[in-house]
Amino acid sequence: MASMVFSECSTSTTSRFFPMSLRKDAVVLLRRLSLPRHSCASKVPLSFRAFTVGASTPTSPPPSVAIEACAKVIDGKYVAKQIRDEISSEVSRMKEAIRVVPGLAVILVGDRKDSATYVRNKKKACESVGINSLEVHLPEDSKEEDVLEFISGFNDDPSVHGILVQLPLPSHMNEQSILNAVTIEKDVDGFHPLNIGRLAMRGREPLFVPCTPKGCIELLHRYGIGIKGKRAVIIGRSNIVGMPAALLLQREDATISIVHSRTQNPEEITREADIIIAAVGQANMVRGTWIKPGAVIIDVGINPVEDSKSSRGYKLVGDVHYEEACKVASAITPVPGGVGPMTIAMLLSNTLTSAKRAHNFQ
Amino acid sequence: MASMVFSECSTSTTSRFFPMSLRKDAVVLLRRLSLPRHSCASKVPLSFRAFTVGASTPTSPPPSVAIEACAKVIDGKYVAKQIRDEISSEVSRMKEAIRVVPGLAVILVGDRKDSATYVRNKKKACESVGINSLEVHLPEDSKEEDVLEFISGFNDDPSVHGILVQLPLPSHMNEQSILNAVTIEKDVDGFHPLNIGRLAMRGREPLFVPCTPKGCIELLHRYGIGIKGKRAVIIGRSNIVGMPAALLLQREDATISIVHSRTQNPEEITREADIIIAAVGQANMVRGTWIKPGAVIIDVGINPVEDSKSSRGYKLVGDVHYEEACKVASAITPVPGGVGPMTIAMLLSNTLTSAKRAHNFQ
Repeated sequence: MASMVFSECSTSTTSRFFPMSLRKDAVVLLRRLSLPRHSCASKVPLSFRAFTVGASTPTSPPPSVAIEACAKVIDGKYVAKQIRDEISSEVSRMKEAIRVVPGLAVILVGDRKDSATYVRNKKKACESVGINSLEVHLPEDSKEEDVLEFISGFNDDPSVHGILVQLPLPSHMNEQSILNAVTIEKDVDGFHPLNIGRLAMRGREPLFVPCTPKGCIELLHRYGIGIKGKRAVIIGRSNIVGMPAALLLQREDATISIVHSRTQNPEEITREADIIIAAVGQANMVRGTWIKPGAVIIDVGINPVEDSKSSRGYKLVGDVHYEEACKVASAITPVPGGVGPMTIAMLLSNTLTSAKRAHNFQ
Repeated sequence: MASMVFSECSTSTTSRFFPMSLRKDAVVLLRRLSLPRHSCASKVPLSFRAFTVGASTPTSPPPSVAIEACAKVIDGKYVAKQIRDEISSEVSRMKEAIRVVPGLAVILVGDRKDSATYVRNKKKACESVGINSLEVHLPEDSKEEDVLEFISGFNDDPSVHGILVQLPLPSHMNEQSILNAVTIEKDVDGFHPLNIGRLAMRGREPLFVPCTPKGCIELLHRYGIGIKGKRAVIIGRSNIVGMPAALLLQREDATISIVHSRTQNPEEITREADIIIAAVGQANMVRGTWIKPGAVIIDVGINPVEDSKSSRGYKLVGDVHYEEACKVASAITPVPGGVGPMTIAMLLSNTLTSAKRAHNFQ
């Protein structure tokens, strides 16, 4: 039996949506942002530091400087909050102007606790910016047709602008055919092959960009980190992060290389990068020696590792060895608090974009 | 007014279609193939030479060896002929078994001489393997609707398995909307974003792969050149060659880097490659110094350059400086006679695949 929850919330902040602060020059001065607790930034006052992205070589600066140096922390939590505020403002403006509120439908099948948590977080995030969230919860033993029926209903429902099927689905269901049933106009996850194809092609525009890679690029933009002409290495080639991240970076004129499980010399290739996106799901895989001095690191991995000091018995770490990377990189996302918070923010952004497009609202 | 030509030819060779000779080991011994006239292979007897793909470094072999060395010529003309023979055999087998002949419809608009030549070549190639070719020739001042009407007719026609709109179209027509009108089941060019999306995604299969990049990979396969784990640099990121070639190489587990007009150090990156695909349209751009000793080069460029010795006043050269490359690479495609002949062979292959799929013929 399906349960449905419908909620509507709105806020009224006034800042405008996405005032991009992309600066194309290589030498940038970063604004001071709040620093996560595992930052080592105290060694050098951040507000007075300039750094060059991609201008260094593996031999410079000398080791003594590298040991002293400390990466700027790219604070995803802060940026995600900023974006949610902007979305909130846009949702209000839209509601006021044309009496339309963006709506996101989430379909959850079964009783996986982690999935239930993700869905709850998405619902809360929707509420926080005034987007309607509509949740369908189907039992584990539902038929594929039941899911397809709900998708079909949401496809036709003009109050729904985004449809998200929480993965993984129970094993008796065909994930691909269920995901393909979501109309491309409401594919806010951006995983439809037609969207991916348009993302890959020059001169074509995808309707939606997958949320996590979109969040990675947004962090670079917001921190004024130039992409054009930079050497970018993407570690991992998954459909949901690595591959679309590479396509996005190439769209912005980076020179991309994609490192994966069959790459023979990942360390050597990664060390060529001005920008590293690590999305491979292996705790601390990228060591300090893999990183060119001055590189910018976006760490998508969230890996639990044993930690006797923690009351939970574990802590979360990224794919990049944070402490080592901090000494070499010019900027880095922490885990948690880096890319993670950006994913849901981008889901909200995609839902807003969809609603604006459906109603031709600028 | 449209003119229509319908032809059917068949042959009866007996070899089977695509008996891939892909060898995954890095050290390969190449079979002796006929050598184009600009080969410098006479210096070292080819039939006794072994070479290692991707095992060399920029410092080995020493210059004295490199000067003596001479690349194996990858003979696209020969391979394309081999493939046409295989297709011809399969077309006969299909006709005999289920009385179905694959059909390719080509739409040509206007009077461009080069386009007319391309269409004529495609028609001849179809005839040579027994594929039906159906040609529509519309005048330059046709309306977009006229073209769309023919496409719609071919979409519905069960005797047509591939539809190809010859580009460029007259400027008053919207190329994108015309190409999008071709049903994905008959998109033998493989340019539909849905096909490109599936090509990019792991676990998805495109219905068709674009002909020229497919031809590049086929040459590597037929020459037993391993791709898995190799470093591949693709120069150029066009929708029709560079980008899909990169996606194809990645599907075969190469580690890809894409060099383009905004790349700051193309020479340095290209020199890291075990396999180079050059598709940028600049005569002789890739010099000998760009090439790692032992690399394999697939040159997609076909550029006319002045040549007073030629009766035509020009000759065709690739994107790679052939004479210089021959001294460094282990294998290289000539221009002409390399990738060029493969494109039409792959178009025939896609048309056959489409017909087989439509009739569930194995």
